[in-house]
Amino acid sequence: MARVVVDVMLKPEILDPQGKAVHGALPRLGFEGVSDVRQGKRFELDLDGDVTEQRLAQVHEIAEKLLSNPVIEDYAIHVADES
Amino acid sequence: MARVVVDVMLKPEILDPQGKAVHGALPRLGFEGVSDVRQGKRFELDLDGDVTEQRLAQVHEIAEKLLSNPVIEDYAIHVADES
Amino acid sequence: MARVVVDVMLKPEILDPQGKAVHGALPRLGFEGVSDVRQGKRFELDLDGDVTEQRLAQVHEIAEKLLSNPVIEDYAIHVADES
Amino acid sequence: MARVVVDVMLKPEILDPQGKAVHGALPRLGFEGVSDVRQGKRFELDLDGDVTEQRLAQVHEIAEKLLSNPVIEDYAIHVADES
Repeated sequence: MARVVVDVMLKPEILDPQGKAVHGALPRLGFEGVSDVRQGKRFELDLDGDVTEQRLAQVHEIAEKLLSNPVIEDYAIHVADES
Repeated sequence: MARVVVDVMLKPEILDPQGKAVHGALPRLGFEGVSDVRQGKRFELDLDGDVTEQRLAQVHEIAEKLLSNPVIEDYAIHVADES
Repeated sequence: MARVVVDVMLKPEILDPQGKAVHGALPRLGFEGVSDVRQGKRFELDLDGDVTEQRLAQVHEIAEKLLSNPVIEDYAIHVADES
Repeated sequence: MARVVVDVMLKPEILDPQGKAVHGALPRLGFEGVSDVRQGKRFELDLDGDVTEQRLAQVHEIAEKLLSNPVIEDYAIHVADES
């Protein structure tokens, strides 16, 4: 079994209210020195068998069609070595 | 500036309906061979200055107090080299 | 066509870090007098045909099996009169 | 104490992959007759005191500034009678 991770974040130019809320809550908790916070989604896909180029191409397609909205979000795929 | 990433996932024993929905939608789109999908949250924190041990300890505290619910979620922190 | 709404919220006894972040960010923006904030999910389901008792029973099953984790979340179903 | 609810949904013209995933998973579970699913966020704000017009104006401001991204999302505010 292999684990592939797909990270989906709002594009940098798109305002992210969730991240902004976290950022805004930090000072009151005594945390200084954080200049920005962005919140996105992380998907962990467990694949049967090995991670071949073909399987990765498939994960790209899944990321584009089902995990993200390419108009407002970027995604990044990486193979997890942990687990 | 340094970027630290906090990944927050439901604990493995906690049912994840969002991941299940993604998993259930894959076959209809023609994707086979994915045995499981889990969905979590990814936070990107931009820190002023360098990532010292003290700063990382602070990020752990933020992760525990503001980004996750330790009863149902696990978190992982890593320093991003990209960006 | 009929629209049915399913609201999914963490159970009251489960800590909600997202809501806490929003709550914590309010004072800095000048908002006082909010004693608590909870964040949940809202699903809008468009059904073909009318909303019969049988259809509503089906939506309950969908809510239980695919939209929520009954161990940590509560859901509420209501038929939307607005479109 | 009064509870005000803010529903935040992606604008209708913005593709919603989360809702699409739920929609795509329904047939396999035996649910037919759902023509569309959209997923959004629901915020429950507990206010000290009564819900005056001034307080509601404040909630509108919170919704615009902290709970939604007006470029891609719409929000709706309603006073909850339950609870």
